[in-house]
Amino acid sequence: METNSIQATDTELTATIITPAELLEHWQGHRKLSRKVIEAFPEDQLYAFSIGGMRPFAQLAMEMIVLSAPGIRGIAFGDWTFGEPALDFETPPPATKEELLTLWDQVTDYINLLWPQIPLSRFHEVDKAYGMYEGSIYSLLLYTIDNEIHHRGQGYVYLRALGIEPPAFWDR
Amino acid sequence: METNSIQATDTELTATIITPAELLEHWQGHRKLSRKVIEAFPEDQLYAFSIGGMRPFAQLAMEMIVLSAPGIRGIAFGDWTFGEPALDFETPPPATKEELLTLWDQVTDYINLLWPQIPLSRFHEVDKAYGMYEGSIYSLLLYTIDNEIHHRGQGYVYLRALGIEPPAFWDR
Repeated sequence: METNSIQATDTELTATIITPAELLEHWQGHRKLSRKVIEAFPEDQLYAFSIGGMRPFAQLAMEMIVLSAPGIRGIAFGDWTFGEPALDFETPPPATKEELLTLWDQVTDYINLLWPQIPLSRFHEVDKAYGMYEGSIYSLLLYTIDNEIHHRGQGYVYLRALGIEPPAFWDR
Repeated sequence: METNSIQATDTELTATIITPAELLEHWQGHRKLSRKVIEAFPEDQLYAFSIGGMRPFAQLAMEMIVLSAPGIRGIAFGDWTFGEPALDFETPPPATKEELLTLWDQVTDYINLLWPQIPLSRFHEVDKAYGMYEGSIYSLLLYTIDNEIHHRGQGYVYLRALGIEPPAFWDR
């Protein structure tokens, strides 16, 4: 992946678990799979289908977006805002699947743009994410990825219940 | 966390995204939450309840176990076996919730035992996991964690559909 300006030397590569470029590829691979899950839903069911009182998948996808896009700006610069008007946890999903996918793609590009600007030392700094959740930057980043996997897994059950084959989990 | 013998210096701490000790804590935090999800199921539903033709949660939990326990041995030593007889992807879950939880706890202890023995250079080596899946060790490890989050998220839907409040996602 060519998006990262922080190049690890061979020595560092063998002395670290995962490099910034590898973690970006990992995150974007998950985002690519989540995009496929959004696409797999029939438009009406994306906004309406639910099991056990849980949120429809459009709302779960919007949570992924709101964690990721203000998230990457906060991770990079400590400013937990994104968009105009700024996205927050109260922002409803866009009204159509096409608009939701467009917003998804904007966030993908925004992550690729900001990622190389994160100083390596930043990952162990402590910040208050979205002005609310205090933690080290690496743990906030892992939380963002994990939360997406968690809710996407729920989307898989929705799709199966609708009789739709979800995309393969390992295909990113 | 005191389980890791590879101690990073202050300089290394600011020059790496995540240390081995932090990744172990992250993994075991997720395993702790997955254990709570197993516990939350009524015993009969753990083995029987399903949505859309998916596997019951006991089988999903068994997949987590089979990835983790041969997994950590393979990650540490390149030997992808665990137990006698050795666990593999065909091994059915133990017959009771109590036995499943006991096996879960054995795996937890086994991970803590083997983790400090992983050389830092091992994470970027390429191996054929379980004799089948080729990839770098760090990516196999992330796959193991992500796969657990994915299937546990599905367990949350099962619990909600059963009218049971799942444990909080952030509580590890």
